[in-house]
Amino acid sequence: MGLYPIFQDVHVMIFIGFGFLMTFLKKYGFSSVGINLLIAALGLQWGILLQGFWHMESNHVYNIIESMINADFSTAAVLISFGAVLGKTSPVQMLILTMFEISIFVCNEHLVVNVLKASDTGASMTIHAFGAYFGLAVARILYRPGLKNGHPKEGSVYHSDLFAMIGTLFLWLFWPSFNSAIAKSAEDQQRAIMNTYFSLAACTVTTFAFSILVEHRGKLDMVHIQNATLAGGVAVGSCADLNILPVGALLIGSTAGIISVIGYKYLSPMLAKLKIQDTCGVHNLHGLPGLLGGIASIIAAAVQVNSNISVGMQAAALGCSIAIALVGGAFTGLILSLPFLGQPPDQNCYDDSVYWEIPIEGGAPLEDNTDYEEDPNKLTVEA
Amino acid sequence: MGLYPIFQDVHVMIFIGFGFLMTFLKKYGFSSVGINLLIAALGLQWGILLQGFWHMESNHVYNIIESMINADFSTAAVLISFGAVLGKTSPVQMLILTMFEISIFVCNEHLVVNVLKASDTGASMTIHAFGAYFGLAVARILYRPGLKNGHPKEGSVYHSDLFAMIGTLFLWLFWPSFNSAIAKSAEDQQRAIMNTYFSLAACTVTTFAFSILVEHRGKLDMVHIQNATLAGGVAVGSCADLNILPVGALLIGSTAGIISVIGYKYLSPMLAKLKIQDTCGVHNLHGLPGLLGGIASIIAAAVQVNSNISVGMQAAALGCSIAIALVGGAFTGLILSLPFLGQPPDQNCYDDSVYWEIPIEGGAPLEDNTDYEEDPNKLTVEA
Amino acid sequence: MGLYPIFQDVHVMIFIGFGFLMTFLKKYGFSSVGINLLIAALGLQWGILLQGFWHMESNHVYNIIESMINADFSTAAVLISFGAVLGKTSPVQMLILTMFEISIFVCNEHLVVNVLKASDTGASMTIHAFGAYFGLAVARILYRPGLKNGHPKEGSVYHSDLFAMIGTLFLWLFWPSFNSAIAKSAEDQQRAIMNTYFSLAACTVTTFAFSILVEHRGKLDMVHIQNATLAGGVAVGSCADLNILPVGALLIGSTAGIISVIGYKYLSPMLAKLKIQDTCGVHNLHGLPGLLGGIASIIAAAVQVNSNISVGMQAAALGCSIAIALVGGAFTGLILSLPFLGQPPDQNCYDDSVYWEIPIEGGAPLEDNTDYEEDPNKLTVEA
Repeated sequence: MGLYPIFQDVHVMIFIGFGFLMTFLKKYGFSSVGINLLIAALGLQWGILLQGFWHMESNHVYNIIESMINADFSTAAVLISFGAVLGKTSPVQMLILTMFEISIFVCNEHLVVNVLKASDTGASMTIHAFGAYFGLAVARILYRPGLKNGHPKEGSVYHSDLFAMIGTLFLWLFWPSFNSAIAKSAEDQQRAIMNTYFSLAACTVTTFAFSILVEHRGKLDMVHIQNATLAGGVAVGSCADLNILPVGALLIGSTAGIISVIGYKYLSPMLAKLKIQDTCGVHNLHGLPGLLGGIASIIAAAVQVNSNISVGMQAAALGCSIAIALVGGAFTGLILSLPFLGQPPDQNCYDDSVYWEIPIEGGAPLEDNTDYEEDPNKLTVEA
Repeated sequence: MGLYPIFQDVHVMIFIGFGFLMTFLKKYGFSSVGINLLIAALGLQWGILLQGFWHMESNHVYNIIESMINADFSTAAVLISFGAVLGKTSPVQMLILTMFEISIFVCNEHLVVNVLKASDTGASMTIHAFGAYFGLAVARILYRPGLKNGHPKEGSVYHSDLFAMIGTLFLWLFWPSFNSAIAKSAEDQQRAIMNTYFSLAACTVTTFAFSILVEHRGKLDMVHIQNATLAGGVAVGSCADLNILPVGALLIGSTAGIISVIGYKYLSPMLAKLKIQDTCGVHNLHGLPGLLGGIASIIAAAVQVNSNISVGMQAAALGCSIAIALVGGAFTGLILSLPFLGQPPDQNCYDDSVYWEIPIEGGAPLEDNTDYEEDPNKLTVEA
Repeated sequence: MGLYPIFQDVHVMIFIGFGFLMTFLKKYGFSSVGINLLIAALGLQWGILLQGFWHMESNHVYNIIESMINADFSTAAVLISFGAVLGKTSPVQMLILTMFEISIFVCNEHLVVNVLKASDTGASMTIHAFGAYFGLAVARILYRPGLKNGHPKEGSVYHSDLFAMIGTLFLWLFWPSFNSAIAKSAEDQQRAIMNTYFSLAACTVTTFAFSILVEHRGKLDMVHIQNATLAGGVAVGSCADLNILPVGALLIGSTAGIISVIGYKYLSPMLAKLKIQDTCGVHNLHGLPGLLGGIASIIAAAVQVNSNISVGMQAAALGCSIAIALVGGAFTGLILSLPFLGQPPDQNCYDDSVYWEIPIEGGAPLEDNTDYEEDPNKLTVEA
């Protein structure tokens, strides 16, 4: 039972966290939460199968709960990539992407953890940077010139932004579980929990401050609050179980919040000009903070907070995660651009009604939403 | 503390899971989530009281957390029945149904577990099939000819379907806890978690595939995704702690997804013609998959995966659960059809405003929702 | 790992529970859930810092998870106060309030627990009564004559009430964890869980009954269901770990539900006349039930359910919690009324658009929400 509550926290992050975070699009909520469920349900089966492959040589009796956590982890990378192409791909394309990305993910993870023996407990590099750059490479290959000037449905409405906050908050709350789930000892686990907790708290405060600073008229932007508040969890990942002291965690978290907000404000428009249309801004939430996490672990190795990690191996882990993600993503993108996979035309992007039966608002045509406004006394008054 | 996190998972399923799953109706969300809370809060007190009755002869020192889990379980059966009559009963009727159903539930459970000594760890038979057929019997007795051709408010809107997905996902996520909560040993518990996890994952993938297959124009139906994805958790219940291997769990889950989707598409309209109006389709989510779960446990006994279960006792458990549910439900339905219990007239079905103060949309009459579209510079421009 | 699942439950209450409970306002959802996140993220850092101050003299090696629970607790008091002034303060005002209130909270807690050595495991007095009366004092100082006759945006819409129920239910579900988190022994913890569970269940049933009784036309009021159902958790706090028997818990819970509903119906309008505008009715959910909790603990001491608590010390704890809250709140309110803190003018109260970029409903002007109603065959028919 030991790890089961931790597994459940991670499980909630995958299905509720990622699923609802993406419901911010006004007419793409069914796909966000529904295709997220489909990808994750397929991904975890595929992930468990592939893990079995690498574990074959080792002793067969490994913990099933640990295996389920690792399967959820591999699924997380796919869901991050999903964010980059959200609204522009068909369910069939996503299923193919899931199979390819998890296969490549498992190889990269094997390389980083078992060959390079780098430290990446909270998986800043192997999940977040990997998933983000994989998704960005796919998005680049699937570039749509027709969406260069935006799309009328690529935006939120008031209530869709509140649904997205359900996702944000469950990710925020359970991130300490995510970063500590595969820690090696109870002591490491506790340190990972504490560091992640501090990093997220600091990141949240800086995100609010910078969101006001970068916006005209000094208002808060919901996109920043939904996303950049989580960058602290991403960035502290690689160092989560290291003895970086609360001050180290606070520093990493604050920096992550700043670069994430700046990324959303200034970098995303630049990426769009480079023909990379990143729907959810995964580069700002997972890419840059993942990169920061890798760099932080290199610095941690340089100042020798822990004798088991080395500068070279951490740098190699970061480099190979990003390189494999870019190459793998580009390759997968080419496969996804095959014409018979049901990719929606530009005008049907960000629109559930292409893949889902959508309820007709108001039910029967003559029944509208104003019903409740009727005063029961009204008829008498009129009579 | 051992079982407490598991209890909390089950607790979330009862109040958030069942509560929000039923908010799919466009104008019945307050009742779905509110009356669900009322039923559950009453039901668990009544359940604990009645358990004490059966435990009286035994040693008094039993675990309170276990008792709370069992109380939540008895409440689950009532909430399943609630789904069958959702929108067509008054709160008073539901309170009476709660008292009767839990009393009958506790007797049936005592019979299955202590007399027949059948295996039903995840309660496919004693909770899911029981709750569904009890509710269907009540729905048959309370048949409303006036709703034969549907009702303008019996449907969803876009956002109500998203609220329902909150319920679906929390049920999906914590189902391994539900099916393992009363497992006898740590090993059984781990097996129940793993089998349920695999069954749900397989069920989800088949549900998406079959939802597209049965729908005209090949679109996904949100009703299937909200419900049939959970059928794998129901169906694997009776076998959850048995050594059915991952392949057995995947097989049960896939079959459950298929029969549930087919049930929603083809069987529900037939049931409606048999004068059984099943609002949430509990027959497809709990009835048929519960039946499948019982049959799977009979097969498991036949192929002797476990020496402690016998074909005869499993079959007897399934038969008596359904028989007692049908008779008990019909009896309870007759009591509920007494005229002074506030049953709403046909035109007020599926409508919160009969029992709840409903906020007037838009606030004060002259304040409408278009406020935010006003550009702050607009007045200056106009001036 | 022992306390970590309990910590996570409390953590969910703080961020999801309080955050979504306050989204009931139709146009203040971004601020409710967003500023709640900001306050909590700042508050827990400040709370951990201040705890370190009191713990300095003691042995340094204290449990970090326990410390995180205590930090969340201090944040809870601030969020309760936030409810009293919701919609009428700026984010900057709330940040200042957070710093002041937590500082005063930590002093009061030190006094109650370490000096008076009173029993307040579930913190009815030190968190709930304290937070409520602190917030009411602030609200009194910041009284707005312009809102005497209400405000068009001070109300809910159908879906905002459903979002609020997410908050209600997570608070309801995890309250046993809240009340047992700092219990001294495993036995005390189990008792606290059980007592809170019974109190909440009883409170819920009485809340529904009294909501119908006090409303004209005998309808349920969503405000009562969202709030008064939780009063049982507040009121049983001080006695949670005492041996009050299930009947004691049921009695406390039922009483709490009754006084909370009556408070919302009759007392809140009276408070408004006393120039205390309590947006969320925290007096009814936290103030009165907190007071009841303190009185219940005095009675428990009087009838000697536990030899470690004394009538005098419990009464002193209650008195000093309320007195310090009122004085501290009034003082903080005076500071918050300094003119340069961005307090919104009356007409901008309860309105997110003052502090947030708000999405324009319907996206591009010509894209409206009726899209989905278009039958794909319609064009052919028309042609």
